[in-house]
Amino acid sequence: MGELHDMTNEEMLVNAAVSSWKIVIGRLDKGIQKLDEEQLQKQVAPGRNRLYYLLGHLTAVHDRMFPLLGLGERLYPQLDEPYITNPDGALPDPLSADELKKAWSEVNAKLTIAFETLTPQEWLQKHTQVSDEDFAKDPSRNRLAVFLSRTNHASFHAGQAVLVK
Amino acid sequence: MGELHDMTNEEMLVNAAVSSWKIVIGRLDKGIQKLDEEQLQKQVAPGRNRLYYLLGHLTAVHDRMFPLLGLGERLYPQLDEPYITNPDGALPDPLSADELKKAWSEVNAKLTIAFETLTPQEWLQKHTQVSDEDFAKDPSRNRLAVFLSRTNHASFHAGQAVLVK
Repeated sequence: MGELHDMTNEEMLVNAAVSSWKIVIGRLDKGIQKLDEEQLQKQVAPGRNRLYYLLGHLTAVHDRMFPLLGLGERLYPQLDEPYITNPDGALPDPLSADELKKAWSEVNAKLTIAFETLTPQEWLQKHTQVSDEDFAKDPSRNRLAVFLSRTNHASFHAGQAVLVK
Repeated sequence: MGELHDMTNEEMLVNAAVSSWKIVIGRLDKGIQKLDEEQLQKQVAPGRNRLYYLLGHLTAVHDRMFPLLGLGERLYPQLDEPYITNPDGALPDPLSADELKKAWSEVNAKLTIAFETLTPQEWLQKHTQVSDEDFAKDPSRNRLAVFLSRTNHASFHAGQAVLVK
């Protein structure tokens, strides 16, 4: 994407959505990177998910955007079982705290590069989990709708993460 | 906004953002409306904000979008002191649970109608808290950026609200 002043209206609208994603991820990242293994083991509230689980969950959900939005191969498919399919505590954590923080950063960095190169027309194309037929009926089932939903999902869990004392 | 199939790309992009807002608010509303006074008095985690405070906070922050986005006069300016300026517990709740739920619904309903009528060009206009000079330097400080930020803010507190048992 070029300089703001050279953008078309379509590009400006898309730029606002990508900026919003970057702000949400940037704030989460700032909070997460300074936490050590012991702090990540804390629950956000009594009996609720550990930060560790939330970090694995967000990394896995974001990683799934690669195939979902047609942006390439996944980097960490092994995170689905412990952090999406199963609740916290059901399976052992497959990565150390440092490895998980690295995975989180890597997935978001690679995604953000892809997001920054999509054109407005590409944002309005269907995501890969909707059929051509269904998309023809409902063109709102596009990449941008998924992207905004994932940004809100990250904000949702960010609100929980800040409750840890 | 018209039917999806008749929309321009610009309108489709804006529609995705407005739909995202409606999904976030709809989910929050569904959870909130069924809670009574006693349930709203619960804290989201030990020593953290009550649901009552979060509901007042979101209502006040959303109400401020009327002047911020140039959409009209505020409906509930009296909510700023107890729910934005001050932390939970500093001031008495000015509205009963039913009154607060009504205020929440009223603010969001009126805002959503306004959001649905803004054109893509209007979404890209500056919000009222940025000067003409600053906006000329940075055209990303537009209505849409504020709107996406507020949608993420609502998601952030929604993540906290669901922790209440």
